[in-house]
Amino acid sequence: MPTNGMANPTNCNTLSAEPVSIHTDAVIIGAGPVGLFQAFQLGLHGIACHIIDALPYIGGQPAQLYPDKPIYDIPGIPCCTGLELVQRLEQQISPFAPALHLGQQVTTLERAADKHRLLLGTTAGLRLAARCVFIAAGVGAFVPRPLKAEGLDSLAPGQVQYHPSDFACASGQHIIIQGSDTSAVQAALTCVQQAASVTLLHRRDSFTAPPALLDALQQQRMTGQIHVAIGQITRVQADAHGKLRAVTLLDSNGQTQQMDANLLLAWPGISPRLGALANWELRLDNKQLVVNTADFQTSQAGIYAVGDINTYPGKRKLILCGFHEATLAAFAAAEYLSGQPVALQYTTSSTQLQKRLGI
Amino acid sequence: MPTNGMANPTNCNTLSAEPVSIHTDAVIIGAGPVGLFQAFQLGLHGIACHIIDALPYIGGQPAQLYPDKPIYDIPGIPCCTGLELVQRLEQQISPFAPALHLGQQVTTLERAADKHRLLLGTTAGLRLAARCVFIAAGVGAFVPRPLKAEGLDSLAPGQVQYHPSDFACASGQHIIIQGSDTSAVQAALTCVQQAASVTLLHRRDSFTAPPALLDALQQQRMTGQIHVAIGQITRVQADAHGKLRAVTLLDSNGQTQQMDANLLLAWPGISPRLGALANWELRLDNKQLVVNTADFQTSQAGIYAVGDINTYPGKRKLILCGFHEATLAAFAAAEYLSGQPVALQYTTSSTQLQKRLGI
Repeated sequence: MPTNGMANPTNCNTLSAEPVSIHTDAVIIGAGPVGLFQAFQLGLHGIACHIIDALPYIGGQPAQLYPDKPIYDIPGIPCCTGLELVQRLEQQISPFAPALHLGQQVTTLERAADKHRLLLGTTAGLRLAARCVFIAAGVGAFVPRPLKAEGLDSLAPGQVQYHPSDFACASGQHIIIQGSDTSAVQAALTCVQQAASVTLLHRRDSFTAPPALLDALQQQRMTGQIHVAIGQITRVQADAHGKLRAVTLLDSNGQTQQMDANLLLAWPGISPRLGALANWELRLDNKQLVVNTADFQTSQAGIYAVGDINTYPGKRKLILCGFHEATLAAFAAAEYLSGQPVALQYTTSSTQLQKRLGI
Repeated sequence: MPTNGMANPTNCNTLSAEPVSIHTDAVIIGAGPVGLFQAFQLGLHGIACHIIDALPYIGGQPAQLYPDKPIYDIPGIPCCTGLELVQRLEQQISPFAPALHLGQQVTTLERAADKHRLLLGTTAGLRLAARCVFIAAGVGAFVPRPLKAEGLDSLAPGQVQYHPSDFACASGQHIIIQGSDTSAVQAALTCVQQAASVTLLHRRDSFTAPPALLDALQQQRMTGQIHVAIGQITRVQADAHGKLRAVTLLDSNGQTQQMDANLLLAWPGISPRLGALANWELRLDNKQLVVNTADFQTSQAGIYAVGDINTYPGKRKLILCGFHEATLAAFAAAEYLSGQPVALQYTTSSTQLQKRLGI
């Protein structure tokens, strides 16, 4: 049990010495646009892959930081939102059905005793052995800024959940949902059907979600089904078994109030962290992974870095540059895995590529 | 008047010593996808440009070689045809309204006496002075394979026209249209309204065009408005003034026939040619322009090469790689032109970029 109150089991640091459970050709660290396109390019080479991301959903920065904001510089797409870009890439890679492992960070990356396979471990206890690894980790793993409140250490696991996607635990409970974005509003509207009470808590009375959700929220507030509380949690109280009993709120006028609660679902702000990557014995320059522009390999054979995490002369942190990098890295990996030159084929004319695409 | 029968004035080799008529920051040679995206990236930096292409329309290889074929590997676009990709790029660059100079090849590229400006001349007699030049010429200029037939030299200008876009000259004439693609079929259907007679000539009785056009062609054939002839032109006959009078056809059975005609419009096959580029004192490796991957500059300052025409370690001739190359080349040129570092901005968040985009 970590002491920062991050009780979500997918964020527990439970990496142990259990045997490797997944053997694969390729692991991609990061499910942002460049990581997703990496899977596409590997798929064209007939290389299956697993993708790991700290966020509980795909899409990385565009999905997390600007899902509704327009992007104008993706070639051939005059305008799309961050979320639309992710959805387009999701559709594009669907023929290759990469295995997704979300809501967990890669904590270890080391070479197996055979000097070839790369062993990875995640915060969710997943263990993988891969022949090559693609680090598409952007500015680092986006991890929730943990709540800071007195008493969090005394809570049993599961009493505070960060970015949950399943709400079965809400049944019959007095729930506080902390957050202001679409996910938090959606969670409040979902939980209201089964919880004993639902309080939506934020620093301000301002929520960001599609109009239909905001309308539904307003309706539930008017009928008293959802209570909106303005303030910040300063203290949590547990019973002798570590069960949540109440929280103390501080509002903007400096007033405190206590509120009964047995479950806290939190969508706090998310901030990027380079995390364990700094310890992987890869050459770094100013916290970026140094690669060469012929194959986007790092200082270690079989480990490639693409997108915002890498650096090379002329580097610009643009999504479209990451697409190119992922493409050349896929060719390099295909040659590394097969031990022979790989010729260029075009999706327009190659029956082999079209077969792989399921066309 | 060239001796290969290429009487289209835009293909005449009339470059002379007339003064420079266009002064600009940037010239892009090639209006394929990468050349078009080069204009977009320059536009984001506030750099206006002129684009020159040998073809009479934008789009390069995708527009010329596979307009109706699907492309699957443009990032974020699961499937689009060559023509759709070009249309998407055309829309994307429209805020920057690059000046287009089509149907002409760049024949000369040399440095002005001041050692800074780059002077270009085209087959249409255009003279430009640019501060930087982007060579996005793909596999070379797509130029019509000229007709080979006895007597072509004796024709006056305008009697044979390659890839014409204007058919006013057809009025009242006996016209032979040589070709089998959409443009040729469309030309036959357009000319039939004003010509004295229209013959559509091809090696085989097989035409490639959208179904609606093929239906219309069939209808005109059945009513005798358009005559389809199968064979190849072996000889043309002119009167004393060089006016076309008749052509001699050879059919697949070895039979010849003579046919009256006073105008020959030709859509022959198109083949790429590196052309004059080989003489521009730029470092070449196996007919590709050598660039470095930090700025995609050639061996000469201010001259960049992007897309299929360039080479560097790891190079793969893919459109999406050209997009990246054009992007870094634009940054490099922006720094070269301004003499100072240019910071990265994002179209999602930069009001300056959005202003340039007209948003």
